[in-house]
Amino acid sequence: MSTKPALYTSLSPALLNLYDVNTSIVVIIDVLRATSTIATALHNGAKGIIPVDSVDECIRIGKQMGAITAGERDGKVAEGLQYGNSPFEYPESFIAGQTLVLTTTNGTKLLHMALSNGAHQIITGSFANIDAVCEHLIASKKPVLLGCAAWKDRINIEDTLFAGAVIERIKNHFDINCDASKMAMSIYNESEGNLFEYIKTKNITHYQRLASYGLEKDIQHCLTNNTAPVLPVYENGRLIRAKQ
Amino acid sequence: MSTKPALYTSLSPALLNLYDVNTSIVVIIDVLRATSTIATALHNGAKGIIPVDSVDECIRIGKQMGAITAGERDGKVAEGLQYGNSPFEYPESFIAGQTLVLTTTNGTKLLHMALSNGAHQIITGSFANIDAVCEHLIASKKPVLLGCAAWKDRINIEDTLFAGAVIERIKNHFDINCDASKMAMSIYNESEGNLFEYIKTKNITHYQRLASYGLEKDIQHCLTNNTAPVLPVYENGRLIRAKQ
Repeated sequence: MSTKPALYTSLSPALLNLYDVNTSIVVIIDVLRATSTIATALHNGAKGIIPVDSVDECIRIGKQMGAITAGERDGKVAEGLQYGNSPFEYPESFIAGQTLVLTTTNGTKLLHMALSNGAHQIITGSFANIDAVCEHLIASKKPVLLGCAAWKDRINIEDTLFAGAVIERIKNHFDINCDASKMAMSIYNESEGNLFEYIKTKNITHYQRLASYGLEKDIQHCLTNNTAPVLPVYENGRLIRAKQ
Repeated sequence: MSTKPALYTSLSPALLNLYDVNTSIVVIIDVLRATSTIATALHNGAKGIIPVDSVDECIRIGKQMGAITAGERDGKVAEGLQYGNSPFEYPESFIAGQTLVLTTTNGTKLLHMALSNGAHQIITGSFANIDAVCEHLIASKKPVLLGCAAWKDRINIEDTLFAGAVIERIKNHFDINCDASKMAMSIYNESEGNLFEYIKTKNITHYQRLASYGLEKDIQHCLTNNTAPVLPVYENGRLIRAKQ
């Protein structure tokens, strides 16, 4: 019998309820671009990031707290908000010491689902902070659910790739009896580490969407390892940088 | 602009509602073992197969019609039913001219979902009848949704493999803007056509389940191409062999 903790992957928010998360660390994965932006903003000194479901709530809480409001709908800055969902919008000179209220199409929704399902701990993951995520998961010795934000519940390749990249790095520490996790590893291994070329060649749906807005530079940045080596952890309604 | 019909893949029944099926042919995929058994029984002369949701309904309709009742729950013959879900239970000597009332854990459930979502046409697919399925999809020139039955809504590799095998064969005839379909092709290509070795090496969840019941022979049979070259199509409450 294995005494390693279990690891599962949920490839869409619509599948999250299939997994018991009460004792698990849930990793929220929204590579293009919410969780990459979250890591970047915290790495650049943001005090905290408040993920909210709706644009209205984002505006309301932003006003109340005097915080920066940001978010996107369908890949563009949402109407009524100040900033978007690009890591490049949050350099240290702008974001240090600030609080960001953020709403995105898929990532913040998934985070709130994990929260209401009673997740033991919620962290966010992206290539920007992949090593910090993996180190935390190995050190914690808890069950893990990798939760892909997907696109309006449709499975996407970029979040699956990240799940696969994490699993490849930590698989010896976990018991993995989960076909979705095995598929994620296959997809990641097929990419042979050339993530940008891979998603460009595959012409994945979100690549088409973002590239059509001129955001290839964002995609490349979001597929680069460890540009923002922090561990965002959800505590008391906000994502903060964990002490490491 | 492409004038080819669209092809999508739903990797779990929990994702089926994301796709509009009103103009689509929905292919129900439950490789281990419902749709393999359906093809085999029809190939061996079954008059029709009535897929039902519950064991109780299976018994009730079986009695009413004097039909054979069959089905499984969790991979075993369901209590109260006469036969199980193995293709080997339905040789010509037994099934020719008979009607089968069938209930399975995942496959019949998905079929009824596609039905209530208003699918234009419902067929079933498995390696046992892969060429018949592909020929029909190409000839029909309609949008296609490949619907994987999965396992209690959790994505599985064997149904994904079949989706990938179909897409590889018909991709030039369809417009495929669907990451799940691209992932399915990747998984299929990774197997290099050695499907049994692939799922054994990956030690996928359903392989473990069936092998523990001594059903390796079933698995091998269900992964063999064109052992039952028929096209099962759903008409008036039953799956029948389409005229080809």
